[in-house]
Amino acid sequence: MRNTFGNVFTLTSFGESHGEAVGGVIDGMPAGIEIDKEFIQHELERRRPGQSALTTSRKEPDQVELLSGVFEGKSTGAPIGFVVRNTNHHSQDYENLRCLFRPSHADYTYYNKYGLRDHRGGGRSSARITISRCVGGALAKLALRQVGVSIAAYTSQVGDICTDPDYRRYDIAAAETNPVRCPDSEVAAQMEQLIRKVKAVGDTIGGVVTCVIKGCPPGLGEPEFGKLHAALGAAMLSINAVKGFEYGEGFAGVTARGSQQNDVFVNRGGRIATATNHSGGIQGGISNGEDIYFRVAFKPVATVLMEQQTVDMGGEPTRFTARGRHDSCVVPRAVPVVEAMAAMTLLDYYLIAKTVRL
Amino acid sequence: MRNTFGNVFTLTSFGESHGEAVGGVIDGMPAGIEIDKEFIQHELERRRPGQSALTTSRKEPDQVELLSGVFEGKSTGAPIGFVVRNTNHHSQDYENLRCLFRPSHADYTYYNKYGLRDHRGGGRSSARITISRCVGGALAKLALRQVGVSIAAYTSQVGDICTDPDYRRYDIAAAETNPVRCPDSEVAAQMEQLIRKVKAVGDTIGGVVTCVIKGCPPGLGEPEFGKLHAALGAAMLSINAVKGFEYGEGFAGVTARGSQQNDVFVNRGGRIATATNHSGGIQGGISNGEDIYFRVAFKPVATVLMEQQTVDMGGEPTRFTARGRHDSCVVPRAVPVVEAMAAMTLLDYYLIAKTVRL
Amino acid sequence: MRNTFGNVFTLTSFGESHGEAVGGVIDGMPAGIEIDKEFIQHELERRRPGQSALTTSRKEPDQVELLSGVFEGKSTGAPIGFVVRNTNHHSQDYENLRCLFRPSHADYTYYNKYGLRDHRGGGRSSARITISRCVGGALAKLALRQVGVSIAAYTSQVGDICTDPDYRRYDIAAAETNPVRCPDSEVAAQMEQLIRKVKAVGDTIGGVVTCVIKGCPPGLGEPEFGKLHAALGAAMLSINAVKGFEYGEGFAGVTARGSQQNDVFVNRGGRIATATNHSGGIQGGISNGEDIYFRVAFKPVATVLMEQQTVDMGGEPTRFTARGRHDSCVVPRAVPVVEAMAAMTLLDYYLIAKTVRL
Amino acid sequence: MRNTFGNVFTLTSFGESHGEAVGGVIDGMPAGIEIDKEFIQHELERRRPGQSALTTSRKEPDQVELLSGVFEGKSTGAPIGFVVRNTNHHSQDYENLRCLFRPSHADYTYYNKYGLRDHRGGGRSSARITISRCVGGALAKLALRQVGVSIAAYTSQVGDICTDPDYRRYDIAAAETNPVRCPDSEVAAQMEQLIRKVKAVGDTIGGVVTCVIKGCPPGLGEPEFGKLHAALGAAMLSINAVKGFEYGEGFAGVTARGSQQNDVFVNRGGRIATATNHSGGIQGGISNGEDIYFRVAFKPVATVLMEQQTVDMGGEPTRFTARGRHDSCVVPRAVPVVEAMAAMTLLDYYLIAKTVRL
Repeated sequence: MRNTFGNVFTLTSFGESHGEAVGGVIDGMPAGIEIDKEFIQHELERRRPGQSALTTSRKEPDQVELLSGVFEGKSTGAPIGFVVRNTNHHSQDYENLRCLFRPSHADYTYYNKYGLRDHRGGGRSSARITISRCVGGALAKLALRQVGVSIAAYTSQVGDICTDPDYRRYDIAAAETNPVRCPDSEVAAQMEQLIRKVKAVGDTIGGVVTCVIKGCPPGLGEPEFGKLHAALGAAMLSINAVKGFEYGEGFAGVTARGSQQNDVFVNRGGRIATATNHSGGIQGGISNGEDIYFRVAFKPVATVLMEQQTVDMGGEPTRFTARGRHDSCVVPRAVPVVEAMAAMTLLDYYLIAKTVRL
Repeated sequence: MRNTFGNVFTLTSFGESHGEAVGGVIDGMPAGIEIDKEFIQHELERRRPGQSALTTSRKEPDQVELLSGVFEGKSTGAPIGFVVRNTNHHSQDYENLRCLFRPSHADYTYYNKYGLRDHRGGGRSSARITISRCVGGALAKLALRQVGVSIAAYTSQVGDICTDPDYRRYDIAAAETNPVRCPDSEVAAQMEQLIRKVKAVGDTIGGVVTCVIKGCPPGLGEPEFGKLHAALGAAMLSINAVKGFEYGEGFAGVTARGSQQNDVFVNRGGRIATATNHSGGIQGGISNGEDIYFRVAFKPVATVLMEQQTVDMGGEPTRFTARGRHDSCVVPRAVPVVEAMAAMTLLDYYLIAKTVRL
Repeated sequence: MRNTFGNVFTLTSFGESHGEAVGGVIDGMPAGIEIDKEFIQHELERRRPGQSALTTSRKEPDQVELLSGVFEGKSTGAPIGFVVRNTNHHSQDYENLRCLFRPSHADYTYYNKYGLRDHRGGGRSSARITISRCVGGALAKLALRQVGVSIAAYTSQVGDICTDPDYRRYDIAAAETNPVRCPDSEVAAQMEQLIRKVKAVGDTIGGVVTCVIKGCPPGLGEPEFGKLHAALGAAMLSINAVKGFEYGEGFAGVTARGSQQNDVFVNRGGRIATATNHSGGIQGGISNGEDIYFRVAFKPVATVLMEQQTVDMGGEPTRFTARGRHDSCVVPRAVPVVEAMAAMTLLDYYLIAKTVRL
Repeated sequence: MRNTFGNVFTLTSFGESHGEAVGGVIDGMPAGIEIDKEFIQHELERRRPGQSALTTSRKEPDQVELLSGVFEGKSTGAPIGFVVRNTNHHSQDYENLRCLFRPSHADYTYYNKYGLRDHRGGGRSSARITISRCVGGALAKLALRQVGVSIAAYTSQVGDICTDPDYRRYDIAAAETNPVRCPDSEVAAQMEQLIRKVKAVGDTIGGVVTCVIKGCPPGLGEPEFGKLHAALGAAMLSINAVKGFEYGEGFAGVTARGSQQNDVFVNRGGRIATATNHSGGIQGGISNGEDIYFRVAFKPVATVLMEQQTVDMGGEPTRFTARGRHDSCVVPRAVPVVEAMAAMTLLDYYLIAKTVRL
């Protein structure tokens, strides 16, 4: 709850957009895992602004420093504290927002809840704080790798431009070769064009990230309230700008008949498998050994570079125009964040699953 | 996690479809609330099977007994234990399933996880255990009523038959007047017809429940991992057969521009309000005082009354036909469960919100 | 917190002294454990009032009913709900206490906290609710047995009558052969005499329970805030009437020198062991494989059968005399409760310890 | 659990003795509290080594840096991340301990649990990590101050030298005027002399800290497992080297009669109060408005500067002599840590108590 994610493997996060640093504490990292610092930094680079002309021009090295929990290259089982310094904050860009509430941002709700707020760059509600999630996700990936679980996400929709709904048609790794992170290069080009068009007029656009988990062993997920897909859903819905989550056939599946959607069991070379995978790799809240896949909807971000109407802290109507450096479409940079949240969830549930038998 | 829901207001649930009883413990019920036992029983009746020809013919009184935490008609702040006896279980209907795994049920995943399973009626994974959720939800509603929060859900889609997407066009209370729980009587008739048609051939069909929360004060929801919509999403995704969750504009909103979707603030008679409500009443994970609304997708349930292929516990291919009493469309009976989960989430967050200031 | 104990193996408890029933939900019981119902009932008998002339004459069968989580004699991994009906409550004995606060009871603090209270027999603060702990403890013992961990407690002090401080001088099982549960029959006789003397004048007396855990594997306990002895201490301090907890040498050890108290390591037949065990089997919060032992102080219970001064709910001075059936010394009946809490703690930490490595 | 303390107000801690830094994240700090950085630093100074000839000569500035959660001098409700750099670690002092297990330290248990360990200066089990607790405690004190709660601890016993058992005889503030932190200057001199004597021979000695909480409102503490004294006990027992906890009359009280120990209620100028306070300010696990007081036993620390026998990682007998800078008596420096843990517990429970009524 609040700023801690997970049950056994946990990330406790801190930091604001324009504070000293963002960072956190990862607790429950299994002992004895090799900590590949370059990989962790690489995961941060994937999230970093300024990667291409499509993203915000805020340029920061986003260098992570691990402060504890690693000894002679391996995790010790002690908590891993980390910080990433904020070096390039232009707080003055936000001075005009000190006394007003930007539409569809968290300005008003934070102020109402806490009685005060850090108005600079969205404060705690900024997307910048997903940095901590990427560090946690990178560590989780290092552990999951050792048990054969891999996680890959990609941009499957921007505006109304979509990839084929079947992820199996793609080599997901190819998504990293273009700035929108879409594995279909033709569709990627269209998405890029749309984002440029939207950006040119100071507007923003939403999209969808599809995520696929391979190699997940059967048995992960807790019944009733701790269903694996409920945990994944909560993880995704906690990411800034997310408005929806579906797994397996999702919303589209409601129009099918049960007889069409049931995944019959077959014996695949000695392993109990399913002939189809409409279920999305989870049955009764517990993984069944098939691929887990899900989709995450991101709204168009709220910062548009046009004059907008609003009210100030006293409730008086006013108008303002946002300044600063912003993404026109947050989806490409959200891809590694989706993966990070999935990785932390999976590792958490992998560890929990060890406790159901003596 | 596992069988406990919530943080401050919590439900810990127990029971299997064919065990002695289902029940639970509600902890954190605020002290001094009048406990209207008829209302609680009424909420259970809404979920009960055998309400109409559309639902399973399993008929049980589902009488709830409150065992503690209430004194002279009021909650005392002590935990409220409760039980609902299972009286009408036909366990023999399931004897043929003892050694095989039904497709798209939790049979295989439970067996794999625990090394044994209660095969009777789905055991712990049965929809019967949502009874405990309805009791918890009814208590939460009693408390929320005192602070002016109301929650109402309805069936907005069955198969490809949909209501108007704008819930404001309906008097949601009217949903209780027909067996599909749809507030549009014409659409309801079509839905009913579709369910009958599907049922006639032993098949099943999915649908969508829309839920609306009115009167929620601003300030509920915790930043980062405890966002209000993430909590609502996790709550909904934990309900049996749910495959997707979206709030506000949801998946449809990804195709819009930010300039179209932003909800500008206005001063409405001294209260800071939004001119539109694409956000669904939540900004930055915190309620803003507008209506909260969301949609929940239910798959067609897995029990079809047709012969299906599968494997047995030894992995050998086999065929079977389900017996027993089942719903062809779970959506109408899921409506009170959606409300219950929403009510428990809201009350939990209402109480948590009291802790952010001294 | 509140009414849930434990992290992975949890007991959520409910019930009041004069309500319908006491009971609870045990979640996280490992799957596949044989559930010996006679053993569970036997553990309840050890706690039951009316076992001897020394204890309260409230006589109830305290028959436990398991409602879920057990299938064909084994735990399934699903939560185990249980109830014990209250059958012999003399609520009228407490009618005179409705409007006043008994000294050193929880009457005033509950009323102040919740704004109302169930005045009958102490309500939720009654020692009767330790029944739920004994059920949880019995289940935990069944699981621990399978991994070779055993837990035994005894009365080591009543008033100023003490056993030898070294538990190793006793066959602890012998404690069950006398009503004070002291393994030294001579000391037991003196304790019994003292309790009778105190009881004769309507007064009460305190004492100490010593508990010994044998067979605990090394590695249980989490660093920093989850130290094994901190968990044991919290468990014991949550028992009614407990005022102190110490493990290993405890308070007495503060007068020794480090050079005297250090437990040097030796190689005992291939196993790393300690030559002495001043540490009480725990070092740095983690079990080291030696016996774990600790002591728990119980105050003289507050219900004395003499006239006492107090104030009523309006703050007006008044006088009253307690009626009803009460223990003059709670220590003998607390012995199984101490064991139960230790068993639940150990099993919880046994399961948690499985999560520190992949 | 593990490295997070508290429920609503939480500290998640990280760091090892010889790592880059110690630090943590404080979540749930109420919004709008003035953050007096000098006070926080001052609390760290009280714990710092090298304050007097009595303590370890490890000298570090222990400068705390707050990284988030504070805006224009006030807490924002966002998590407060902080770090204290380790600047003066002499890791080479520990190279000889890499392969052996120091008696009564956590070396063996950590190695057994995690399969590897950071041998430098005790790693995660070092008393140095109590720095994070002092930062959390200082913040909690700042909030508690606003509601009139104050916390003060002192050294009440070193070896067999004790103060008067009645804390009310002392001006506790006077404890800060001598290096042993004892409010009785004569007793303090004797304690100091004893510590010097013990130090001269390379040995160590234990002691007791007494802590008093004044101004605590009635109503803090949760029934059953969340009793206020159980939370305080767990907090204290989690401090390095603590072997026992008692509150109110504690262990001594077991020899008294109930009629002697009961605290009768009186009307003190309109406030319901108790004539005596044997209960230690807590009844039924809930504060009653009187002073809360408790005692914490610290063992003689394990590092003695004498040759000791032990075994190495292969189980082979060996001998070693500790080097490095160590305290002969940890009690004076533990005083602020006891206060810090008490402050965090009280603030946590203060906030929780707000949730029991609507």
